Amino acid sequence: MTKEKSKVKIIPLGGLDEIGKNMTAFEYEDEIIIVDCGVAFPEDDMLGVDLVIPDITYLIKNAEKVKGFLFTHGHEDHIGAVPYVLREVNAPIYATKLTMGLIQNKLKEHDLDNKVKKHVINPGKSVNFKNFKVEFIRTNHSIADSVALAIHTPCGVIVHTGDFKVDFTPVGDAEPIDLTKFAELGKEGVLALMADSTNVERKGYTMSEKTVGETFDNIFAQSARNRIIITTFASNVHRIQQIINCAIKYKRKVAVMGRSMVNVINTAIELEYLQIPDGMMIDITEIKNYSDHEVVVLVTGSQGQPMSALSRIAHSENKQLEVKAGDIVVFSSTPVPGNERTIAKLINELYKKGVEVIKDDTHVSGHACQEELKLIYTLLKPKFFIPAHGEYRHQKIHADLVKSLGMDSRNIFIMQIGEVLELDSKTAKVAGAVPSGQVFIDGLGVGDVGNIVLRDRKHLSQDGLIIIVLAVDKECQVVSGPDIISRGFVYVRESENLMVEVKDLIQDTVSEWSASGNTEWHWIKNTLKDELKEFIWEKTRRNPMILPIIMEV
Amino acid sequence: MTKEKSKVKIIPLGGLDEIGKNMTAFEYEDEIIIVDCGVAFPEDDMLGVDLVIPDITYLIKNAEKVKGFLFTHGHEDHIGAVPYVLREVNAPIYATKLTMGLIQNKLKEHDLDNKVKKHVINPGKSVNFKNFKVEFIRTNHSIADSVALAIHTPCGVIVHTGDFKVDFTPVGDAEPIDLTKFAELGKEGVLALMADSTNVERKGYTMSEKTVGETFDNIFAQSARNRIIITTFASNVHRIQQIINCAIKYKRKVAVMGRSMVNVINTAIELEYLQIPDGMMIDITEIKNYSDHEVVVLVTGSQGQPMSALSRIAHSENKQLEVKAGDIVVFSSTPVPGNERTIAKLINELYKKGVEVIKDDTHVSGHACQEELKLIYTLLKPKFFIPAHGEYRHQKIHADLVKSLGMDSRNIFIMQIGEVLELDSKTAKVAGAVPSGQVFIDGLGVGDVGNIVLRDRKHLSQDGLIIIVLAVDKECQVVSGPDIISRGFVYVRESENLMVEVKDLIQDTVSEWSASGNTEWHWIKNTLKDELKEFIWEKTRRNPMILPIIMEV
Repeated sequence: MTKEKSKVKIIPLGGLDEIGKNMTAFEYEDEIIIVDCGVAFPEDDMLGVDLVIPDITYLIKNAEKVKGFLFTHGHEDHIGAVPYVLREVNAPIYATKLTMGLIQNKLKEHDLDNKVKKHVINPGKSVNFKNFKVEFIRTNHSIADSVALAIHTPCGVIVHTGDFKVDFTPVGDAEPIDLTKFAELGKEGVLALMADSTNVERKGYTMSEKTVGETFDNIFAQSARNRIIITTFASNVHRIQQIINCAIKYKRKVAVMGRSMVNVINTAIELEYLQIPDGMMIDITEIKNYSDHEVVVLVTGSQGQPMSALSRIAHSENKQLEVKAGDIVVFSSTPVPGNERTIAKLINELYKKGVEVIKDDTHVSGHACQEELKLIYTLLKPKFFIPAHGEYRHQKIHADLVKSLGMDSRNIFIMQIGEVLELDSKTAKVAGAVPSGQVFIDGLGVGDVGNIVLRDRKHLSQDGLIIIVLAVDKECQVVSGPDIISRGFVYVRESENLMVEVKDLIQDTVSEWSASGNTEWHWIKNTLKDELKEFIWEKTRRNPMILPIIMEV
Repeated sequence: MTKEKSKVKIIPLGGLDEIGKNMTAFEYEDEIIIVDCGVAFPEDDMLGVDLVIPDITYLIKNAEKVKGFLFTHGHEDHIGAVPYVLREVNAPIYATKLTMGLIQNKLKEHDLDNKVKKHVINPGKSVNFKNFKVEFIRTNHSIADSVALAIHTPCGVIVHTGDFKVDFTPVGDAEPIDLTKFAELGKEGVLALMADSTNVERKGYTMSEKTVGETFDNIFAQSARNRIIITTFASNVHRIQQIINCAIKYKRKVAVMGRSMVNVINTAIELEYLQIPDGMMIDITEIKNYSDHEVVVLVTGSQGQPMSALSRIAHSENKQLEVKAGDIVVFSSTPVPGNERTIAKLINELYKKGVEVIKDDTHVSGHACQEELKLIYTLLKPKFFIPAHGEYRHQKIHADLVKSLGMDSRNIFIMQIGEVLELDSKTAKVAGAVPSGQVFIDGLGVGDVGNIVLRDRKHLSQDGLIIIVLAVDKECQVVSGPDIISRGFVYVRESENLMVEVKDLIQDTVSEWSASGNTEWHWIKNTLKDELKEFIWEKTRRNPMILPIIMEV
């Protein structure tokens, strides 16, 4: 590795002061490496938007510098933007085996798999760049094969925890987080730490994944005659392993429903992250050949998504399976904030079908609580600290937490995306900013939906629209219309009077204009718009979009 | 009271299998009395809708039978529909003093105050109708002056709990729920019980309102130098009293911001539900004359509503007040399901301004948990049981709860709105149904927005719209256009190629049509729509609304 002569830059492009689209660039001279490349899910006001990815203008401008993409784990908010970003900035990717398997699924879907160089890196191994050496360090999280990264730079070591928790009793073959490595790094000296802030508001420790297995065992033991249907996050391979373990113990076959669940399970089986005896898995179409007590069904839809497997079987919209009285449905998940109402509706529907719903002690978080965060910080004793992976309040509370451990507040950086933190071996300061923000994916479009489009969608969604069309000749005499068309405004058949009044008003305005000799279309368009807007507000207290269209014939 | 010769009917018109718009009709021969008359707040998919009220077709048809509206308490989900319903079905209203004060505010706003007969009924007193006698029974809830109703009918007594909890140490002059009365009713025999199911999923007891006062005291004691800003539900008069008590103890003045908070406090002061020493309250405009440690500010906006006082002062959008570093903001509230993300955003904003946010132990529920529900059931020992005030899962879990207390499941009725439960002194059965459902309020419109309008708003909100206009002569030759206008679809300036292709496609289709001699407008409209829809889906995977407009000149 080169000796320190320049500064190293940390440039978060997503995941700070927000949930999702995690991505951070590390730059030293002519070299940039990138950690994670995730999507965010649209907020309520991003109408019609499917996904949100980071603004990568800076990377596109510096594409020749970009030497690699490194991944901490395979969740969507860390890998989901790969197909969109790699299409613009192609560089080799480095990830653990399962993470790479999940990335590869995405690349195949987007016809990019042959165009990207891929390197599987096992935990404990390193990747060497000209100026960087990156060690992959085993952690625990709600997906297998998660790692923290120790990024050795000419200025010192920067540790990025990724998403993590400390699980002393992980499931199956998994091992606990490599605390020894963290201790060694701390002993050698750590320049900066970027740490997961998701659960920083929670005191104590996150419980071990094993505790969920105990709950499952109780459920299986007590439901000996019932069909069991379990929904969980598709990517939680250890959770799925625990369900399979119960199925083995209680002699049930396992069927899987839902595209993302099938994909992850297939990938996990292929890469040997799931241990499943032969003949254990059955196709969902075979389920009719088994009695209730002989099967357990794994389904997507823990967030109540209307098109998901669980929602469809609850609403009898699926041919293979529908829930029935006596079934046990287990939510092995927690509501993602914003989904509470949708999930409650689904649970109501399940109760209506006579299903028993279980949702207590059936989930643990994948993120470290306060005591675990203190442990990692204390082992690493970094010179500088950057709370990561959280909204502003998480960053702030994480900053306060490390202050309580003795860190000088001048060495803590609550960063915004786009800010550039420059470090040498002794100092750190925010020096400038690069372009950053949100790029919306809507259908096939990347970035063609922006604030104006969203503003119009919002306007249309609230009060609908009224279109006024009229055809005029060259002397501005009306030759056809005005016709009025509305959508999403009122139920026209029940509001005939109002629509007649609207038509009269427009007719009068247009007649006056024709008679006046005024030939400015601009004027009549604005006049129609303003008068109609005022009239409708007065009559209905609504504000539909008004579109006057004038054709010259 | 008349002797039993007919059956009494219980007809829930709102509040079962849903949250909000609570309303139940009780009918005996030619007499109907109604308990509560509330609104619901729109769900996410009710775009542009302001409020939802019950469908009262049945009451309008039987208007001459309706002898009175009785109210359990003054929350919006129990009184909010009064102006809309009383305009259609006018009958005297009966409520406790504070509830009546809050109803009266609504009637005044809608210019109805002089048109409605009002009777204030104190807890412990009764109202007599021809066939009904209704006793008002003191309860505890998150608003003062809440009551349960014992409805004496010729067939027996029906108890409606309203919203309640059991608070042995209520605040100020308030007294605990009148358990003695419940015991007496139980001893005399209760035909049916309709009970609040809101918190039936929670074990144990709801804590006393007093515990919140203790938290407030600690906050005031520990924040001797800071400005304190507290947000809570505007109608929680006891909560506000406790804040005022702390202000007195710690020598702070109290200012109030936010229309609903000001309204409720004024009404509560006027009716002597708040004890406030002279000179204690200051106007928000005077706040600049006081130091931080001399004031506490009560604000609306505990749900993060964007136009509320707290949101505006957090975003520096208010002239009188804006938050600053060092301020303490207390959320004395709980998120209403669905508001979690909005509240989280507001809290992030407050942290960014350097504010300390406190939200632990600052709120208790107003609804009974399982042990309280068991207590009331056990005192009343009703013959029939109807879980009320809840979604389906609450009703079901409440049913299971009373089964565990020994009730025969055949005597439990999990009802839907509109269903008619007929009871005599020995039997009960669901006999038929009346019209019921949701009526949407949008601006001044009541019921003129329905499923078609909402479907269009939804469609427009997701992918916007494309309008194609063209003028043709009598021979179907195009004399102007086709013109294309889009809104909310793509950012047109950045999608020029696409829009050119769209125009070409339309031009071709129209030319073919003109040449063909086909004069069916219907045909060309549908063809344009179908072709454009397919083309756009292929190119963008979006599905905008397409409106072809053809003018004949």
